Amino acid sequence: VARPPLPEPPVTPLAWRGGWRDGALELLDQTLLPAEERTLVRRASADLVGDVQRLAVRGAPLLGLAGAYGLVLAWREALDAGGGADRVHARFDASASALARARPTAINLSRAVEASLRAVRGLGGDARGEALLACARELELREREACAAIARHGAEALTGRTQVLTHCNAGALVTPGLGTALAPLYLLHHRGTPVHVWVDETRPLLQGLRLTAYELGRAGVPWTVISDGAAPGLMRAGAIEAAIVGADRICRNGDVVNKVGTYAVALACHAHGLPFFVAAPRSTFDAATATGADVEIEERRGDVARYLLTGSTPGDLRTREPAFDVTPARLVTAFLTEQGRLDPAALPASIFATDAFA
Amino acid sequence: VARPPLPEPPVTPLAWRGGWRDGALELLDQTLLPAEERTLVRRASADLVGDVQRLAVRGAPLLGLAGAYGLVLAWREALDAGGGADRVHARFDASASALARARPTAINLSRAVEASLRAVRGLGGDARGEALLACARELELREREACAAIARHGAEALTGRTQVLTHCNAGALVTPGLGTALAPLYLLHHRGTPVHVWVDETRPLLQGLRLTAYELGRAGVPWTVISDGAAPGLMRAGAIEAAIVGADRICRNGDVVNKVGTYAVALACHAHGLPFFVAAPRSTFDAATATGADVEIEERRGDVARYLLTGSTPGDLRTREPAFDVTPARLVTAFLTEQGRLDPAALPASIFATDAFA
Repeated sequence: VARPPLPEPPVTPLAWRGGWRDGALELLDQTLLPAEERTLVRRASADLVGDVQRLAVRGAPLLGLAGAYGLVLAWREALDAGGGADRVHARFDASASALARARPTAINLSRAVEASLRAVRGLGGDARGEALLACARELELREREACAAIARHGAEALTGRTQVLTHCNAGALVTPGLGTALAPLYLLHHRGTPVHVWVDETRPLLQGLRLTAYELGRAGVPWTVISDGAAPGLMRAGAIEAAIVGADRICRNGDVVNKVGTYAVALACHAHGLPFFVAAPRSTFDAATATGADVEIEERRGDVARYLLTGSTPGDLRTREPAFDVTPARLVTAFLTEQGRLDPAALPASIFATDAFA
Repeated sequence: VARPPLPEPPVTPLAWRGGWRDGALELLDQTLLPAEERTLVRRASADLVGDVQRLAVRGAPLLGLAGAYGLVLAWREALDAGGGADRVHARFDASASALARARPTAINLSRAVEASLRAVRGLGGDARGEALLACARELELREREACAAIARHGAEALTGRTQVLTHCNAGALVTPGLGTALAPLYLLHHRGTPVHVWVDETRPLLQGLRLTAYELGRAGVPWTVISDGAAPGLMRAGAIEAAIVGADRICRNGDVVNKVGTYAVALACHAHGLPFFVAAPRSTFDAATATGADVEIEERRGDVARYLLTGSTPGDLRTREPAFDVTPARLVTAFLTEQGRLDPAALPASIFATDAFA
């Protein structure tokens, strides 16, 4: 049986143009979507660190790619700045470190940087630049293939369920392919299955409302945005048949670190006997993190909507803004990965990449 | 033992000034809070219907009061418009009906209107006006006393738990007293207990962020606003020790109709073994509604924040905006009422008012 054809990704969030010496990284500025589609052209690694920190580029797989391509920029900068080998390497190491630490939660970022650094050990000059670009391109290819595999395994897992809830944005905007959580939905739609996506708006930063609705719309997949708190009632009414989300990090014990509010989705699915799927490539599984309790949860401050709507300022409105939460493994029906559908209680050692992207 | 003293309500959302012939209903426009404290002076019942529909006056107990005072305006209008008795009564009945139906979910509104109409049957002219005003004042007094009783029973129920989550706004802004869900928290604070309130911002209309934080702040009770989806993670981390909410309607079987997102709070409490309290006066219990499935759930359209933040218009953003959801009785630890703490599995007949406010 021939593999079913895959649809094209509805959007390209990141692309390296040119060679390592003259090239640049093009990024879609995700903070401006859906109102404006602005492409950023980055030639300085510090600019890219800023893009990561202000969420212009976001999502676990895409953060890994940003890190890998960012190293190409960092090496070029270090060489261009001149000086002896020590000075070049010190400069490069500082930039690489800034890239790896730009955001702490998604394991993909620091892991991609580390993997590339290992791969180019001992190389210098042009050879090192070429090799760093080759590493990034290899990672991009692997992640695109992972998306395709997740699409197929996810479509199978969702068989018979067309009313699917998702939280945050784990689609084409966070990968070089069809996405993670959204990939199976794109494939089902492509095959003519009448899939409809319930999109949690995803407070506080509204990634569902702004980004998931945007890319589903570009692909022609029907969607409806809801408040995050509306999902349990819709499940009780029978309107939602399954949930599928991405992940920022999956721990050794199967705990899932993902956008705040994911845990609430998992609890609601559990209460209604609905499957709760987590779609993620191998690059998101982290054997070095034993459980969710070991993950630093980023806290933010300054959700614009809060202040806009009250006339308050961050100074007089007391908030807690955790960006992520932890969903315990027991609430996960299955992981959907490039290795197929995996049981959270029996994760194979092979899903925990130790020599990623090599 | 003397009853403990109660604090004053931090805000007065509604007050009738004057006699039935010359008086007016003063309302705090809750759509403008917290940025602006504007008092509306209403002398026309149609204006009040508009206020109810655009949520300037809101919350189950306060909607009942608005209905009862609105009848005074309606009767005065009908008399002033002149004509024979038939014409006066037809006009009054139409206004009364518009008041009763202004919003469907909170049982308090239609019930208060119906109870007042029963009480003044057979009366005409000034006597009817006086009697309608007396009914409204009696209802106000009873609701204020109910708040005080709920405060005391709730404070007892919360013994030893000072980190309390609430959803939406069920405070002084929705009653003529200390509120329902917030009443016990005001009392605990007044007694010197170091209570801290976690406030769900409560999407889509942000009543927690705009209103609950506002009135807690006026009373000096410490609070922190969170995204609705953050609560389960905070429970898992041990930061939240109990939840307390109000209700728009409590069904014969104990199902609770309340602001959308309440059900998610109840599920999260259940998953973490935390008590989930529903505070409500007798006027919110409705024996005529068998279960939550029998309640019409209002759907809204046009949450400003959604459109503001995407540059979209309601025409191109597909949303479902249910205003309420149903929490099944089995998830309710206890109801806190003027009759004390009640077990949802054994609600006494006496809590279901059949001759309300008489």
